[in-house]
Amino acid sequence: MPLIVSWVDSANAANCPFPLNNLPCGVFTSSDGARHCGMAIGDRIIDLTALEGAAVIALDGGPLLDQPDWSRLMAAGPAVWASLREQITALLQHGSQRRKLVEPHLTVISGAKLHLPFKVAEYTDFYAGRHHAFNVGTMFRGPENALPPNWLHMPIGYNGRASSVVVSGAEIRRPWGQIKGPNDEMPRFAPSQRFDIELEMGAVVGLPSESGKPVTVAEADAMIFGYVLLNDWSARDIQAWEYQPLGPFQAKATATTISPWVVMKAALEPFRVSTPPREVPLLPHLKEDGPLLYNIDLEVGLAPEAATESVISRTNYREMYYSAAQQLAHHTTSGCCMRTGDLLGSGTISGPTKKSRGSLLELSWGGKEPLTLDGGQERSFLNDHDTITLRGRAQGDGYTIGFGDCTGRILPALDDPYAR
Amino acid sequence: MPLIVSWVDSANAANCPFPLNNLPCGVFTSSDGARHCGMAIGDRIIDLTALEGAAVIALDGGPLLDQPDWSRLMAAGPAVWASLREQITALLQHGSQRRKLVEPHLTVISGAKLHLPFKVAEYTDFYAGRHHAFNVGTMFRGPENALPPNWLHMPIGYNGRASSVVVSGAEIRRPWGQIKGPNDEMPRFAPSQRFDIELEMGAVVGLPSESGKPVTVAEADAMIFGYVLLNDWSARDIQAWEYQPLGPFQAKATATTISPWVVMKAALEPFRVSTPPREVPLLPHLKEDGPLLYNIDLEVGLAPEAATESVISRTNYREMYYSAAQQLAHHTTSGCCMRTGDLLGSGTISGPTKKSRGSLLELSWGGKEPLTLDGGQERSFLNDHDTITLRGRAQGDGYTIGFGDCTGRILPALDDPYAR
Repeated sequence: MPLIVSWVDSANAANCPFPLNNLPCGVFTSSDGARHCGMAIGDRIIDLTALEGAAVIALDGGPLLDQPDWSRLMAAGPAVWASLREQITALLQHGSQRRKLVEPHLTVISGAKLHLPFKVAEYTDFYAGRHHAFNVGTMFRGPENALPPNWLHMPIGYNGRASSVVVSGAEIRRPWGQIKGPNDEMPRFAPSQRFDIELEMGAVVGLPSESGKPVTVAEADAMIFGYVLLNDWSARDIQAWEYQPLGPFQAKATATTISPWVVMKAALEPFRVSTPPREVPLLPHLKEDGPLLYNIDLEVGLAPEAATESVISRTNYREMYYSAAQQLAHHTTSGCCMRTGDLLGSGTISGPTKKSRGSLLELSWGGKEPLTLDGGQERSFLNDHDTITLRGRAQGDGYTIGFGDCTGRILPALDDPYAR
Repeated sequence: MPLIVSWVDSANAANCPFPLNNLPCGVFTSSDGARHCGMAIGDRIIDLTALEGAAVIALDGGPLLDQPDWSRLMAAGPAVWASLREQITALLQHGSQRRKLVEPHLTVISGAKLHLPFKVAEYTDFYAGRHHAFNVGTMFRGPENALPPNWLHMPIGYNGRASSVVVSGAEIRRPWGQIKGPNDEMPRFAPSQRFDIELEMGAVVGLPSESGKPVTVAEADAMIFGYVLLNDWSARDIQAWEYQPLGPFQAKATATTISPWVVMKAALEPFRVSTPPREVPLLPHLKEDGPLLYNIDLEVGLAPEAATESVISRTNYREMYYSAAQQLAHHTTSGCCMRTGDLLGSGTISGPTKKSRGSLLELSWGGKEPLTLDGGQERSFLNDHDTITLRGRAQGDGYTIGFGDCTGRILPALDDPYAR
């Protein structure tokens, strides 16, 4: 599919992340001070809450966008999602007769205050990247036992903490936690010294499923509304001490940052690719009928305080061993119902090379091989005031699909977290 | 504190679970078909939504009970919780001048349709019972290594799945899942054969906490609105195969049943007891200033289809090593914010003796020592059509505090979970 040309000129540049082909969903503070739903187009946001209020667009079962987030529209299902895209595409397309109706409802993106695009119902994080699982497993158990025995048979995941999900730009306070180093006799309560990132994509559930009714992989794919970039901030020293036997808990609960824009599945359709070849056959309920991953280039930038950014990792979403649809299908196997606004983190997306690893844990090999940044500084884990930015880009025929930066800056730990 | 005598005579019997001292919070279908908030008193429900609507009671910041659940009132905080109890106690107390105003708003409990009392924001389950952790650890790793190294230093927990929480009475469908026995070469997708219960109490968060601000144990205690009985249904065969390295996932996602009544903290105040002696000193942020557990007798009944119930376990909430306040404080250490409606499962409450174990896994020692029920049937794990009932009771001076039965009946697994 080629570029769909818009009368919003900035949307037509080949490197603009928000062409008319994209139309990602976000929430911004409108001039009236309220949160409105909008889509990014070029360097503008189109105010959908206002357009629906003015009856320029109309949706089955509407109003659906008279809300401070996208959750109601997400619940309305694929036919409504498609109808919305169709109406907005027609309004913004070059030559549209209704341009004059739309122009008053465009706002400049730069400077707009963006919010979480949807109510995060629950947050699940997976461990479904082959290279990441192998790297981490090798560090802890050696290369022979790197992958847990179940890993090639199902997407391993755990429930995360939805209340910790924040939108890009939120500052991230270095956490305190219980820590016990390998040579410590007793644990202590202290700020994390091994605070890390995880480069992930997040799948956003639109259509809910029914309790007691597992869904197929194809049904799961149809339930997904769209995708975000996701940074699962992780305190490795807290994690190492707490995670046996029930998995990560406080190590992952400080914050999880998502990009401000949810890219709808329809915008990613041209970029579908298959998961890598299976190393062992999957059980039937996890088999894919078609390509369910996406070819999305990803990168991680790290900018120390008052210094330029270094790109510390470049990888691609297609490196995942399991797709989001497979993860979602697995999530329902026991009868667990999924809800509108459930967020599924892909797991860390590492590629096969050293420079394509998606966490500092892997990039610095547990701190043994610190990274050297462009300006000469070294990093094993995050320093205070570092800014991390995730970026994602799917390259179309004369256009680019982007997600907006997924960024967060590290604030120093509180001196005394219990001071009031 | 002695019995507070009510003009609702049934509330004054020494063995009635709902005396005026209790006033637990539930949600029921009112005669107008809508969900109303109510409190149990004797064999009746007092309709608080109606009483507030009729201005018989008034709450700061109200209306708070014009809702299909208690979440708004729970968020209002301890002063409002106390004010509500005070007003309802005055209305229902023997000799009340306003009895005539209240009588039209009493409904018989038996036959009332009860619902989840609050919106479950997120659900966290702990592993904080000493005997349970020791039993399970012994089965898997031997008695020398039974407790994980971190266990005596912090309440180990994991995030569960809030969408799976159901109210007492909901039928529980035996789940399918990926299972690989110790002698199987490959996993298979099949109905769980080791479907189990976990006898727990749940703490319900009323007051939220702030992101980035850990709370002390005392602050955590003040945030707790009340307690429920909780059955964390668990598929042991699914759990065994999936839980490494990130913890239980689908094994615990079929359902978690809670009692229909939330007993407010104030009603449990006379039953406070200390946690057991610490085996190693706790770090300061987890230390308790006073008694934070409760003396609540607990039991589990198992009734096979068309057969009488056997009580298969009798224990007490005071067997926990960590209190809910300690668990909640730990939950915020990394800066994780807690929200109104968060539900914290205590972990399985097993006592020191064989007959006080809180799961079939322990009672049948992993299936090696099947239980014999009163009627002669044997059980290692749950059979189809078994009904499990949890009961809790705090014994006061001439009165009893109860939670209502926490019950669920097992339905057979679907023949084909993907049939549509």
